[in-house]
Amino acid sequence: MLRTVQLLGGLTAMAFNADAAFPDCVSGPLANNGVCDASLDPLTRARALIGEFTVGEKLNNTGSTSRGIPRLGVPPYTWWQEALHGVALSPGVNFSAAGDYSYATSFPQPILMGAAFDDDLIQAVATVISTEARSFSNVGRAGLDFWTPNINPFRDPRWGRGQETPGEDSFHLSSYVRALIDGLQGGYDPKYKRIIATCKHFVGYDMESWNGNYRYQWDAPISMQDMVEYYMPPFRSCARDSNVGAFMCSYNSVNGVPTCADPWLLNDVLRKHWGWTNEEQWVTSDCDAVQNVFLPHEWAKTREEAAALSLIAGTDVNCGTYYQNHLPAAYAQGLINDTILDKALIRQYSSLVRLGYFDRPENQPYRALNFTNVSTPHAEQLAYRAAVEGIVLLKNEGMLPLDLSGNRTIALVGDWANATEQMQGNYFGQPPFLHSPLYAAQQLTTVYYVNGPGQGDPTTDNWLPVWSTAAKADIIIYVGGIDNSVESEGMDRVSIAWTGAQLDVIGQLAEYGKPMAVVQMGGGQIDSTPIKDNPNISSLLWAGYPGQDGGTAIFDIITGNAAPAGRLPVTQYPASYIAQVPMTDMTLRPGPTSPGRTYKWYNGREVYPFGYGLHYTNFTASIDEESFGPRRNMSFSISSLFSSCNASSNKPQYIDRCPFVTLSVNVRNTGNQASDYVALLFSSGEFGPRPYPLKSLVAYTRAHNISAGGLQTVGLNLTLGSLARVDDRGNTVLYPGDYSLMLDLQPLATANFTLTGKAVVLDYWPQPPANRKPVGVPGLPEGYFTGGFGSTTGPEQKPVGVKT
Amino acid sequence: MLRTVQLLGGLTAMAFNADAAFPDCVSGPLANNGVCDASLDPLTRARALIGEFTVGEKLNNTGSTSRGIPRLGVPPYTWWQEALHGVALSPGVNFSAAGDYSYATSFPQPILMGAAFDDDLIQAVATVISTEARSFSNVGRAGLDFWTPNINPFRDPRWGRGQETPGEDSFHLSSYVRALIDGLQGGYDPKYKRIIATCKHFVGYDMESWNGNYRYQWDAPISMQDMVEYYMPPFRSCARDSNVGAFMCSYNSVNGVPTCADPWLLNDVLRKHWGWTNEEQWVTSDCDAVQNVFLPHEWAKTREEAAALSLIAGTDVNCGTYYQNHLPAAYAQGLINDTILDKALIRQYSSLVRLGYFDRPENQPYRALNFTNVSTPHAEQLAYRAAVEGIVLLKNEGMLPLDLSGNRTIALVGDWANATEQMQGNYFGQPPFLHSPLYAAQQLTTVYYVNGPGQGDPTTDNWLPVWSTAAKADIIIYVGGIDNSVESEGMDRVSIAWTGAQLDVIGQLAEYGKPMAVVQMGGGQIDSTPIKDNPNISSLLWAGYPGQDGGTAIFDIITGNAAPAGRLPVTQYPASYIAQVPMTDMTLRPGPTSPGRTYKWYNGREVYPFGYGLHYTNFTASIDEESFGPRRNMSFSISSLFSSCNASSNKPQYIDRCPFVTLSVNVRNTGNQASDYVALLFSSGEFGPRPYPLKSLVAYTRAHNISAGGLQTVGLNLTLGSLARVDDRGNTVLYPGDYSLMLDLQPLATANFTLTGKAVVLDYWPQPPANRKPVGVPGLPEGYFTGGFGSTTGPEQKPVGVKT
Repeated sequence: MLRTVQLLGGLTAMAFNADAAFPDCVSGPLANNGVCDASLDPLTRARALIGEFTVGEKLNNTGSTSRGIPRLGVPPYTWWQEALHGVALSPGVNFSAAGDYSYATSFPQPILMGAAFDDDLIQAVATVISTEARSFSNVGRAGLDFWTPNINPFRDPRWGRGQETPGEDSFHLSSYVRALIDGLQGGYDPKYKRIIATCKHFVGYDMESWNGNYRYQWDAPISMQDMVEYYMPPFRSCARDSNVGAFMCSYNSVNGVPTCADPWLLNDVLRKHWGWTNEEQWVTSDCDAVQNVFLPHEWAKTREEAAALSLIAGTDVNCGTYYQNHLPAAYAQGLINDTILDKALIRQYSSLVRLGYFDRPENQPYRALNFTNVSTPHAEQLAYRAAVEGIVLLKNEGMLPLDLSGNRTIALVGDWANATEQMQGNYFGQPPFLHSPLYAAQQLTTVYYVNGPGQGDPTTDNWLPVWSTAAKADIIIYVGGIDNSVESEGMDRVSIAWTGAQLDVIGQLAEYGKPMAVVQMGGGQIDSTPIKDNPNISSLLWAGYPGQDGGTAIFDIITGNAAPAGRLPVTQYPASYIAQVPMTDMTLRPGPTSPGRTYKWYNGREVYPFGYGLHYTNFTASIDEESFGPRRNMSFSISSLFSSCNASSNKPQYIDRCPFVTLSVNVRNTGNQASDYVALLFSSGEFGPRPYPLKSLVAYTRAHNISAGGLQTVGLNLTLGSLARVDDRGNTVLYPGDYSLMLDLQPLATANFTLTGKAVVLDYWPQPPANRKPVGVPGLPEGYFTGGFGSTTGPEQKPVGVKT
Repeated sequence: MLRTVQLLGGLTAMAFNADAAFPDCVSGPLANNGVCDASLDPLTRARALIGEFTVGEKLNNTGSTSRGIPRLGVPPYTWWQEALHGVALSPGVNFSAAGDYSYATSFPQPILMGAAFDDDLIQAVATVISTEARSFSNVGRAGLDFWTPNINPFRDPRWGRGQETPGEDSFHLSSYVRALIDGLQGGYDPKYKRIIATCKHFVGYDMESWNGNYRYQWDAPISMQDMVEYYMPPFRSCARDSNVGAFMCSYNSVNGVPTCADPWLLNDVLRKHWGWTNEEQWVTSDCDAVQNVFLPHEWAKTREEAAALSLIAGTDVNCGTYYQNHLPAAYAQGLINDTILDKALIRQYSSLVRLGYFDRPENQPYRALNFTNVSTPHAEQLAYRAAVEGIVLLKNEGMLPLDLSGNRTIALVGDWANATEQMQGNYFGQPPFLHSPLYAAQQLTTVYYVNGPGQGDPTTDNWLPVWSTAAKADIIIYVGGIDNSVESEGMDRVSIAWTGAQLDVIGQLAEYGKPMAVVQMGGGQIDSTPIKDNPNISSLLWAGYPGQDGGTAIFDIITGNAAPAGRLPVTQYPASYIAQVPMTDMTLRPGPTSPGRTYKWYNGREVYPFGYGLHYTNFTASIDEESFGPRRNMSFSISSLFSSCNASSNKPQYIDRCPFVTLSVNVRNTGNQASDYVALLFSSGEFGPRPYPLKSLVAYTRAHNISAGGLQTVGLNLTLGSLARVDDRGNTVLYPGDYSLMLDLQPLATANFTLTGKAVVLDYWPQPPANRKPVGVPGLPEGYFTGGFGSTTGPEQKPVGVKT
């Protein structure tokens, strides 16, 4: 018999935030409860509230659809709003059909914003998003916690959700996410948070479905070295360096343990090791990841145990209803108690306290926001600028910037030519407008438009109009690539070549011998070798998912009204890459069955490398020799670096943050057009454990609008942490050795220095317990859910990297 | 420059059959052309017509959207209607929005009709379909060629289109398709064909997308033994034994050669070897498979060559526009000439002659059909009966037939509980009604209905109402499984376990301890071990995609208003099966890296075997000993079997059709309920090349409505061909040895006999040319399109069976 059914039989229907209000702390039942006393600290206030809950009321409020407690005047609350690149459609967000609150600013997808390499831009974008979120919240159209960012590194080019991330590099992501959270939450520890950001998916989540392995079931095998070096840094940045309000544990398990039921991960690493000990912070499960702890992970032998283990491990909010279904029986069985329940509830409600949820609105600046603060001219301009800054020029043999004088006409061809919703990727809201490439082109000249051949099935049905269109125009621009029909949540790509019959159409268009450019759209890179190598195609741009004003941004770049300066935030691998490494191989370093992952380790020849991007002008650069000190000493003793850091009045809390040097870099625009310039600084050298990465990004910044012939000086900060390597136990270590620094891909400037003395551990990594195994679910055949690789009869089908 | 563009620049827009009419042979421009002279033979008539075409007009009419020739009064014609299980939405079919012609009968998907093992039923269903198709055609709402059946054997349980086939067994499919084509076309060689059927996809097409291999690019490696034994028989049945009007070549290549450009396949095998030499028969490409000959197959080095090679190989119709695009330049380059073009066009138009297209309607019975012949009571009853006959009872521990006396209430749970469109699978039309399981149950008693947990993402959002619903009912019936959201065209399954969180919900429902049945829906089998083994779940039915009256059929079976007698047309493998064999492994026999495929070869333990199906009654059976002759001689000399066949006045054209014996089987219903009984006859024994199949289906028939205690005698025909085996060159051989015959799975009756003398070849298989290789497309990197397995760095990722 299901005890849960009887216990929960009297539940009322779900409520939505649209109907929600802030609690009435003046004349409601809570008025005299401590939670309404703004003079108390948030934890005390939350405890006072929870103290009034019956056990049933506690159990009723453990899911993402928190039912509230009418008796106490606690309103229902939906823990689940999305804002990946603008306030987005989600359970807790409610756009109106028309008029006020019917739209919010829609920025580019993070993958394109990542290509801007501009943390200030990201901070500004995030500030707009949190402002608009608050405006929606103030009229009951949104809650206050937003389940963004997705900050898993974009490990494999197939990943359908790579578009949601800023790219493949962990250092880049760590820096980006700090700026983002600052903008979303309103600083490191503000009195009132603007909103709560939620770093997801913790951890090792970067595959939807590959060859029978799917995200709900997949057990990611990750070495401690890869874990700390690659998978963890963005999350450490969230927790330790950005004080993010919430985390989300992921669907997958890691090294055998479902993340939502892993106390090592959620307690030892996240809370203890990273000092994320503020009880106003909580962890939510990914949606129904607690159910997955039971099935398909079979981590627990009963449903009650799955729920209890997750709650105890530190999953404070259950997206879904599994807690509400099964914690009552778990409670009755003694698997949890009030102390455990209270901890989760106190975290939830104290976080609401920190959002001013229980405070009078009068003194809260964010409570004054309304629709006049949404989609402002500033916000619209920022959405445009974010797209412009991200777009990457990959090939240009002189056609661009495009000269349209003499009324030259354009044949605009491709699936994306009239893109509207496509430009938003996934997790989008309702934008104020969607300016397609076609719209933008039509503002400039006569355009002959024809939809492309499609990305899925090859079909020649609509090809005949393509030829007649191409024949009559002066210039051919093809805007295509991929979109969420081939890369999306739940769907990884099975090919990283151009999809469908696009290459055939592009090849035929090129045969016209007219000036021709291709705009490659989509989040994951596709192998553009045939376009790169086709002498009849002059130019190639990558424009990701550029958001509401994407068409304008693309055509402003094409015509030179804006200067391209974006850089690829991921490697563009050859199409054959995915045959060389199973998606389930989580290792970064190359090996007998993998050419390695990311620009740091990939030992093959990429089509376009990470960090690649052309300009309409040329740059030179030099590193100020005094950056390393007035005596230009290029040798440093590790011990003295530490002692001087420790002696500093500004001594950082974590020693990896100790400053090393700030490189002063002089960038000169030697061409004829003003342009931004992204300064990417890489280190390389033979220090620390073998093998050595080819190079590592250690600092970046974006200089804006360097005038033709002009000079700008930018500073690139290096810390001891940015020079460190990770050993095989996951310890972060500063090693002696010869270090090389290179500015840009074909280095515009270099600097070499030496660290001497003994290696020093900057961070001792907490080791996970050994031998953690799922218990299995009675009645299920062994390996029932293990998909493609639950049991194999020979080594031939066994992919590298699957747990053994 | 694209020559094609200039040549085709003046094309008019596409026309649809909705606007089409039959040609006016009385007062139109054609009236005096030989094509309108009904006294001439079809070929002469078609030649007379083509004789009037200019080269441009010929080239304009090579695609599936045939533009016709206004000058000559040749109407446009769309070669592309679908009718997989009823007249279906497709380019050439146009349903009206309401009223007449707004619907047509929607039968179950073939996978469920296959489970009926009733060729008479199939013939009757096909006759209704062709009748309704003609009715639509007569008012310009459909053409006369229909691209059905999909008769590739259902080789791998993952295949998303397995639902479109009658199952996994080639003998079964060959028999089924003969009945089907007879019904669709109106006999073997009628004066007027009812419609043209199109056997697809020739050949080796049974994978959509697996681990980076996708149907447009996949090169299926098939041994000649597997080819003739498994992949070819249904197509031989179509061409040689059923005189089907059309074939479709497939997307994939086979042993290196794209099927649409393979003269060995389309000419040597199909036309010459199988005697499909009637010039009124044509081959169409799958849609844009000719484009695929260029890319991604890279079989030709230019587009013109790809089109020319396909046309020359015998692809007479190009679904798509590649012929229309590129044959003009191919013609200009001398790659094709008028003789080659004319052959294709003559085949097309002479086939229309055989449909009465150019004849006066008065003397054609099919031209008199109208909407009164659509969705008749007979057709509706047949759609219901087809569903009832197919449904398979897999488990029954006494709950069924369900006793609803005392107003017992039902909790009806699951994604399929209120299924409407789902019941049609894919390639469906607009049905007159869709009677869901919920609808059917509500005719019987009080039903508490709640939608299920979904098949894709596990989500507990809607679980709470499930429990309250289950709590208040007397009986729980779960109707779920899979549908076209997880198995479909373009999408193979990555798991053959129950999807999403269904097993968790089913498990929780079972804990109520109420009488509970599960109805497993969908075309591919899912591993139902947890349901089979759960003592709290009394019964399990499989109901496929049951069509317009599926809900009624299911509940009539459940309540005993109809008796279950369907048999599984495929093996239900354990979930782990797909980890044991790559989908790309086309071999049937087990080997070091495969447990084998189909009931003939699979050496593991299936969950439910091919042919499995329970009844509400019991049967005994005996084989009449006189079946083998009055002297009951159980030893036969192979040479005398041949000489007696050759001496027969009824000597068959192909010696594999020589009769061996007709077994007379007496089937007795020893239980209390009238029921159909499917007689499945298997052979086994150690004869012919090793390894030997576990058993082989050699005959089947369905006895109808055997009364309780009653006896029926059925005849099972064995031919020499049904006893033969195939050698490693693809030759079909009758071998001496000891043969065992078994009736049913747990044999109700057996018979043994011996063939003596020398082995005799029944069919010498035409060998393909050696060393056929794609030429590659200039400018593309090697292996650009080869997806997941174009190049591998080690043996670990290489699946068995991929071409080496």
